[in-house]
Amino acid sequence: MTLWARFRSVDGRVGFGMVEGDAIVECEGDLFGQWRPTGAIIHRDKFEWLAPCTPSKIIALWNNFHALAARIGKQAPRHPLFLIKPGSSLAGPGDRIERPLGYAGKIAYEGELGIVIKTRCSNVSESDAADHILGYTCVNDVTAIDLLDEDDNFAQWCRSKGCDTFGCLGPVIATSFDWHNAHVVVRLNDVERQNYPLSDMIFSPAELVSRISHDLSLLPGDVIACGTSLGVGSIKDGSTVEVVIDGIGSLINRH
Amino acid sequence: MTLWARFRSVDGRVGFGMVEGDAIVECEGDLFGQWRPTGAIIHRDKFEWLAPCTPSKIIALWNNFHALAARIGKQAPRHPLFLIKPGSSLAGPGDRIERPLGYAGKIAYEGELGIVIKTRCSNVSESDAADHILGYTCVNDVTAIDLLDEDDNFAQWCRSKGCDTFGCLGPVIATSFDWHNAHVVVRLNDVERQNYPLSDMIFSPAELVSRISHDLSLLPGDVIACGTSLGVGSIKDGSTVEVVIDGIGSLINRH
Repeated sequence: MTLWARFRSVDGRVGFGMVEGDAIVECEGDLFGQWRPTGAIIHRDKFEWLAPCTPSKIIALWNNFHALAARIGKQAPRHPLFLIKPGSSLAGPGDRIERPLGYAGKIAYEGELGIVIKTRCSNVSESDAADHILGYTCVNDVTAIDLLDEDDNFAQWCRSKGCDTFGCLGPVIATSFDWHNAHVVVRLNDVERQNYPLSDMIFSPAELVSRISHDLSLLPGDVIACGTSLGVGSIKDGSTVEVVIDGIGSLINRH
Repeated sequence: MTLWARFRSVDGRVGFGMVEGDAIVECEGDLFGQWRPTGAIIHRDKFEWLAPCTPSKIIALWNNFHALAARIGKQAPRHPLFLIKPGSSLAGPGDRIERPLGYAGKIAYEGELGIVIKTRCSNVSESDAADHILGYTCVNDVTAIDLLDEDDNFAQWCRSKGCDTFGCLGPVIATSFDWHNAHVVVRLNDVERQNYPLSDMIFSPAELVSRISHDLSLLPGDVIACGTSLGVGSIKDGSTVEVVIDGIGSLINRH
């Protein structure tokens, strides 16, 4: 298991490398292609975490957990249902979740598992999907929830979820992560609000990569956010949200 | 008025430049920043057209023309209603519109005006919007229309419009284009199917850039597809679709 991180060092340089204890073993090259260690070790007080990848798009699932589907009275879908959060919505560990100018409504957190794509791919079979997954990260799929149904004729998924800083990813990409026994836990101001098992997913990561790659090409660094389950709620101004997945880490953002 | 084009020359090189007659005056640098002519003139038989920019996202409007709103019995929206087509959906002039593997349903054309963003921007005022627009291009906002309402609970806008080759742009970016008196014309196998005035737009280009940039950041090369009007229809396999806007040019794609 490798934990890949991106960082900004105190001298302003952006880099990536492998987490070892409190430090990062810096690498150079292409995280999704050829890379090698530079020989430098960056200690914890010499860098800040960045989002571990810079996706061209975040594919965000709706209705992908049995427990939430049952709660909202919906059948399990026959195909993954998704919207697209743009790359411009990216935020990393420690970044503030910003309120869009002129929006006074509720802002919601959704803790999720994120699949990080390794190679450009389309029409992938389920059995080949693992070859196209670099690893997994934590996602906070933030939503300006009052915008979603503001118009009676058109559900505004991309608008309400596409704002700058609404695609929180991190802290790292964990390779060889076994999601089957893991839980997604969300704490709002240190109070647990979500704690759901990934085994309750309707479409597994391999199914998601296969089915979605039949709809459109996935690129290196693209993220599929697997959808959320019970316990979604709103984040008051000044709050702190933490998404924790054992085996990946803890993604903390303030609002 | 400059007509900016991207091209692939016969020796495989990708470049950009200004269209003069049948040739391209090649430039180097950044189309969205500093550029200068290289001194080379690429003649028509020495290049093929590429999409004139490579957007990180295409913001595609729904219900932005009064005539179509009236036809479908919808009120004019109070805010631009949009979905996101990913950069991976890009196609250029002459590119084939590909049928997604395993999809046997109808594929629809929608001729539209595209706004090409010049500078990274957010929270732009309507009066400043022109400073952030490089120019305009033709768009064919292609849709796998039978996927849109396949699920009763979730309109699949991003899936049905996000497939590879479904974001056709070109042939050029026209600066100083005056949309007020222009029409969007679509011909399917040389038969006119759409011919609507851009003056019928609900939200103008300046309003779109302003309102949407309050929702999310727009990046250089991003495209806002202004929505379509009457005359949308399906493209049978083997058909040719042409989107023509006088002052910009003719975007032709085969399916």
